[in-house]
Amino acid sequence: MGLRGTMGINERGHLEIGGCDVVDLAARFGTPLYVFDEELIREQCRTYQGAFARHYPKGRTIYAGKAFLTIAMCRLIAEEGLYLDVVSGGELYTALAAGFPKERIYFHGNNKSREELVMALQAGIGCIVVDNCFELAVLDRLCEQLSCQVDILLRVTPGVEAHTHTYIQTGQLDSKFGFPLAQGIAREAVRKALEARNLNLRGLHCHIGSQIFDLESFGVTVAILFHFLDEIRDELGWTAEELNLGGGLGIKYNRDDSPVSPEEYIAYLARVVRENAGRSRLDLPLIGVEPGRSIVGEAGTTLYRVGAIKDLPGIRKYITVDGGMGDNPRVALYQAAYEAMVANKANRNKTQLVSVAGKCCESGDMLIWDLETPHVVPGDLLAVLCTGAYTYSMASNYNRLPRPAAVFAYRGSADLVVRRETYEMLIANDVLPPRLQGLEVRSVEQA
Amino acid sequence: MGLRGTMGINERGHLEIGGCDVVDLAARFGTPLYVFDEELIREQCRTYQGAFARHYPKGRTIYAGKAFLTIAMCRLIAEEGLYLDVVSGGELYTALAAGFPKERIYFHGNNKSREELVMALQAGIGCIVVDNCFELAVLDRLCEQLSCQVDILLRVTPGVEAHTHTYIQTGQLDSKFGFPLAQGIAREAVRKALEARNLNLRGLHCHIGSQIFDLESFGVTVAILFHFLDEIRDELGWTAEELNLGGGLGIKYNRDDSPVSPEEYIAYLARVVRENAGRSRLDLPLIGVEPGRSIVGEAGTTLYRVGAIKDLPGIRKYITVDGGMGDNPRVALYQAAYEAMVANKANRNKTQLVSVAGKCCESGDMLIWDLETPHVVPGDLLAVLCTGAYTYSMASNYNRLPRPAAVFAYRGSADLVVRRETYEMLIANDVLPPRLQGLEVRSVEQA
Repeated sequence: MGLRGTMGINERGHLEIGGCDVVDLAARFGTPLYVFDEELIREQCRTYQGAFARHYPKGRTIYAGKAFLTIAMCRLIAEEGLYLDVVSGGELYTALAAGFPKERIYFHGNNKSREELVMALQAGIGCIVVDNCFELAVLDRLCEQLSCQVDILLRVTPGVEAHTHTYIQTGQLDSKFGFPLAQGIAREAVRKALEARNLNLRGLHCHIGSQIFDLESFGVTVAILFHFLDEIRDELGWTAEELNLGGGLGIKYNRDDSPVSPEEYIAYLARVVRENAGRSRLDLPLIGVEPGRSIVGEAGTTLYRVGAIKDLPGIRKYITVDGGMGDNPRVALYQAAYEAMVANKANRNKTQLVSVAGKCCESGDMLIWDLETPHVVPGDLLAVLCTGAYTYSMASNYNRLPRPAAVFAYRGSADLVVRRETYEMLIANDVLPPRLQGLEVRSVEQA
Repeated sequence: MGLRGTMGINERGHLEIGGCDVVDLAARFGTPLYVFDEELIREQCRTYQGAFARHYPKGRTIYAGKAFLTIAMCRLIAEEGLYLDVVSGGELYTALAAGFPKERIYFHGNNKSREELVMALQAGIGCIVVDNCFELAVLDRLCEQLSCQVDILLRVTPGVEAHTHTYIQTGQLDSKFGFPLAQGIAREAVRKALEARNLNLRGLHCHIGSQIFDLESFGVTVAILFHFLDEIRDELGWTAEELNLGGGLGIKYNRDDSPVSPEEYIAYLARVVRENAGRSRLDLPLIGVEPGRSIVGEAGTTLYRVGAIKDLPGIRKYITVDGGMGDNPRVALYQAAYEAMVANKANRNKTQLVSVAGKCCESGDMLIWDLETPHVVPGDLLAVLCTGAYTYSMASNYNRLPRPAAVFAYRGSADLVVRRETYEMLIANDVLPPRLQGLEVRSVEQA
């Protein structure tokens, strides 16, 4: 069935999340609606924190905000003691507006603007993850101008690329991100960073992929990083206080996925870091990881109202919902496969195979192919599971559909964390230039 | 070079659009910036209108709003005498807010909500394109309740699927849209529509694909539609006053594309409609076409500021810009291939091959692979061509990047038509529930 976290089926045969009947949530907040299982988000945070405490106390869990970031989410993450990874001025602005502890913020990105860097320096955030030489030079100069210093990590590309169940190791490091360890590029960056008067080089960062299921790719990465650190110590006399190993731990979108638990992941990282540090006779560095999807992905569920149903005999039965690629572009973008259930008929036997079509005027707007369901009628409520990450954060107004509301459901009550967009908001930024205001609308004579 | 419309290169060696130096536009409005060549949009409208006047006076050009719809765009389209195709309450709201003539609006969509249909009926729009039986019944009932009548078309699927340079014809009509002509489904829908007391069935609608380069797929479609009309006249005594052939005419994104001109397209449609109508001894119907991309696609250019540049010897040279998949998701979604030029160095010799990376924290955020350019430095202005359609309309706030501004450039002046989003707007809908306000942020002891 794929129930997760606090999900259950109540005596009315309805799906519950956080002790709230989702049929009630849909009636109260409307559809489409993102429902977050707050308990599950907190549990995931605590699993990471607990695993570090047990296996590697010098560890930091840094939530990757790009998965889902709002003011309420920032507060929750702050309460749970996590750090935060932001990737833009907009994410940083959100974190600061939420009162997120600035010293716990890491700032990422392959093309941070001057304005964004100034914003980060003026806010006094904890660490800037520098991606390239241009940024290194600009940042040092800005610090000079603002009379400040800043902690940095250098993002490096270790030549390991993870693909869900496997990885490749390559000498060619063709990525828009970071300094390749190959060809002396990363070593040269370390040298420059050490020379920069206003930058305090704390360590290295790398990120090898997303939705990763095999730990070995992380192990290979750690070994490569320590090999580099070993070399660089001898050449430049510098050792890293901090190694940030990025994110990428996979989650269970559907029955085909077999993810590793955060506990195993952290335990594994702890072991390979200790082994490699011991072998290289380096002090144990601070280790950071950047889970996003793995904190919030499974905690999210999208509720849709079923509208038109189209039964094409011998071909396919379509059920259509009131959202789609606007609120969840992952299916169109990544061919992501989701599980779903009819939330108001959660106990009924599944008797048919349907495909779930979105509302957008585009053939590609399909949410799920071949889903087993009970008999479905217009007005039923469809719950698409595991939509917490990269849905609201990637949502568009394609077809001028307003973006949905989001709620945190927690111990029997539900609170709005994102208001639903209105039609008024859709045209709020539209401007009508004067010369288009006065002109007469040409009337058309029908032939 | 790919210059289109009013584009030119001025004596400063800068790209000009609508008589405006884009370097000045970038300085005045900031980047990223969508610049529309208003003259070219108007020209495209007039080409369609003129082609109909010459070849088939009973023709309607219906702009497909989902390509790019704002209040200013609605006004422009209204001035040019076009009709408008909207696909949601949000698009309809925009059109009404712009004062677009309501009788010239067609309302599309595979899952219009009750609220959207009521909105359309109360506004008194020209025509509703009914997608399925559920909608047919709901619409008839709503008309009853509101004591009104409405003109409708039925969307049918003719079993022709066009793919850019080719098409397939299939008996299986596996689409979320419309009534298949096969298996008597469309015939049954016509029968039901004729019985509905409040619906005036004017004709049929179909749409066979997007970015189509061969006219033959349209010809085959017309023949199939007339074959159906011929049958249905004998069976039900009904003939269509209107045939809407949808959109889909391809445009020239890059040198590999060889589109047909709107003039040829309309001339071709006129010919095959006349032939088929003659053969079936049916009166010439009103013909509608729904160009979106073909009206606005080539008229749009996105200006980006170049930031970090990363030269990986023997691998690739990346230039990074201040936008990406947020403002143009078509590359990630459809592997769309765009042309671009360095707008402030438009006359210089191209001496290198670069790849253009977006600003989003995602490896997939690449805008162009292998672009020939002159020597590029940070601060240069990159103009990506042919971005008028399905860019702003599909734009997201992924990574919490504010969506860009848009301007219409026309005869030497430029007017804002979409304001740039601000950071404040990004958090405008964020809500902090009371129980997350008071709680203390847990402090973290660094090990």
